[in-house]
Amino acid sequence: MSEVKTLEWKNDELILIDCTKLPTSEEYVICKDYKTLAEAIKILVVRGAPAIGVSAAYGVVLAAIQAQKETGTQKEYIDFIKKAIEELAETRPTAVNLFWGLNRMEEKLESVKDLPQDQIKEELLKEANKIYDEDIECNISIGKYGNEVVPQDARILTHCNAGALATAGYGTALGVVRYAHNQGKNIHVYADETRPLLQGSRLTAWELVKEDIPATLITDSMAGYAMKLGMIDMLVFGADRIALNGDVANKIGSYSISVLAKEHGIPVYVAAPLSTIDINIENGDQIPIEQRDKDEVRELFGTQTAPKEIDTFNPAFDVTPSQYITGIITEVGVLRPPYNLSIPKAFKIKEER
Amino acid sequence: MSEVKTLEWKNDELILIDCTKLPTSEEYVICKDYKTLAEAIKILVVRGAPAIGVSAAYGVVLAAIQAQKETGTQKEYIDFIKKAIEELAETRPTAVNLFWGLNRMEEKLESVKDLPQDQIKEELLKEANKIYDEDIECNISIGKYGNEVVPQDARILTHCNAGALATAGYGTALGVVRYAHNQGKNIHVYADETRPLLQGSRLTAWELVKEDIPATLITDSMAGYAMKLGMIDMLVFGADRIALNGDVANKIGSYSISVLAKEHGIPVYVAAPLSTIDINIENGDQIPIEQRDKDEVRELFGTQTAPKEIDTFNPAFDVTPSQYITGIITEVGVLRPPYNLSIPKAFKIKEER
Repeated sequence: MSEVKTLEWKNDELILIDCTKLPTSEEYVICKDYKTLAEAIKILVVRGAPAIGVSAAYGVVLAAIQAQKETGTQKEYIDFIKKAIEELAETRPTAVNLFWGLNRMEEKLESVKDLPQDQIKEELLKEANKIYDEDIECNISIGKYGNEVVPQDARILTHCNAGALATAGYGTALGVVRYAHNQGKNIHVYADETRPLLQGSRLTAWELVKEDIPATLITDSMAGYAMKLGMIDMLVFGADRIALNGDVANKIGSYSISVLAKEHGIPVYVAAPLSTIDINIENGDQIPIEQRDKDEVRELFGTQTAPKEIDTFNPAFDVTPSQYITGIITEVGVLRPPYNLSIPKAFKIKEER
Repeated sequence: MSEVKTLEWKNDELILIDCTKLPTSEEYVICKDYKTLAEAIKILVVRGAPAIGVSAAYGVVLAAIQAQKETGTQKEYIDFIKKAIEELAETRPTAVNLFWGLNRMEEKLESVKDLPQDQIKEELLKEANKIYDEDIECNISIGKYGNEVVPQDARILTHCNAGALATAGYGTALGVVRYAHNQGKNIHVYADETRPLLQGSRLTAWELVKEDIPATLITDSMAGYAMKLGMIDMLVFGADRIALNGDVANKIGSYSISVLAKEHGIPVYVAAPLSTIDINIENGDQIPIEQRDKDEVRELFGTQTAPKEIDTFNPAFDVTPSQYITGIITEVGVLRPPYNLSIPKAFKIKEER
């Protein structure tokens, strides 16, 4: 397991490590109500598609606890929780795990809605815990399957943070890295800093240092040159949403490094649980891309880096078409192109387990 | 002309706008001796290949003024200036204009070394002024020729700062932008912020805002996605050294955007005076690449962005092989591949003028 504790349910509260404060300070945010959690998701206290999904599931439990105190009739109680689910769903648009986690909670709520409120809360908590446990289990499976495509002495480029901090624990892309490292493969990670919000330097570098995994931090602009110098053997990054044809929405910059990798003949792997695949979306053009505050590009940690008058463009994600992706590492194995065949097959394997 | 005054010789002093303080503060550094200038070049108070070349030329004049006060015999006087030239040459390794400017000054010194010291100083100052004037003249010619390849309504991606702030004035890549803008071409600039030192957001954005040229600032990681979305029609960036075969050393990240442009069928132009072409270097592999302080990647404006323990890689430049470059915009015209033929031809044209 990883030493990093991203989120923890304790005494009817959800405790989140504050990703906005890392790496200089290790602070925690305690969510006693679902609105605090919704805000925490919006401002990226908790981020990363799987971590958002798991947190939102616990958010529904927080809503149930509040509803029991703040409402009268059973209908009001159920409506309160459903409204909370709607509000949580509106926090961020791209990561599909958010909707996937909330859907599971809503289905559970539907199936237990006539029980006494104490029992409903217990059932919801059980479901959230299940989602949490499944996420960690998933990540370890991803790590195991991913390890099969990691060569001995591999130098691995990663982007953003798809680590323990982006999941319930362990990580997807960094899960592959952790697993390979623990197998003694003598790997070396190159981490893109990932502007504008620096999840690479703040979070990935922090995780790698914490677990003594050999690593080098580079700016996003250095990835191509590092490839040209022969410093990179493979790419592994996470995903916020994957379309049925294998197109991958992930942190802005993933597309650039994938194109660069293709030019250099370097394989590109995406590591993500099947819950990141949106079976309602045929291709990447249909994935909604979150546009964030323009100041994020003009500032860094509150320091102005550009004239206030300059306009900026600030998409949080981009879409990498499936033809750039060598394989998608999931909890049931490494999917290969054509993804419109391997993805449905993967869901079938998962269902049969 | 541009409103930006990068460097100015006045009352036997060289006044530099402090590029490290922009855009939040417009401050000037006054160099009364060559060592102050050498330090200013090292810490990037003045940067950009042409600006470094012109500044260093004035540095030799500063050394002559000092030598007259601080030395005895004519031999000591000449040796003092030669030592200053050596020290100035050691400030930065990649920009060839530095050596080119210093060589011109050394040749001039050689040709006047038996004159009285007052006259030597005057001759050196004349030569430095000539280098200054030629640089601005060059940039305007580059702008004029470059304008021929800029389509109406072009959306132009640029990287780092090859503007007035990188030259004696006007700019090379931004010279092309300025010229096209002044011709009423309705252009729009996309400026990469250019980590680690943010010359794009600090300097290019500042110049563009100052002259009301429509522009959008993006992070380096967004360039590929912007191309994919059809937002970019052409690339123009500067150069720190160009090999005889047309390989271009420029700010780290230039290679990445050139590969991305190729993938999207977008033309890539390099704008540089012929003095940036190093006729002693056959290809890009032979260009020395400056490695800068590792903290530049772990910090920003003195704020820590990554764990102190993480290793970093910090090349200041990369090399873009000539096959990615559509044309090199010089003061004698736009050179086209094969560059091993068009480059010598360009030098011949220049010589004959």
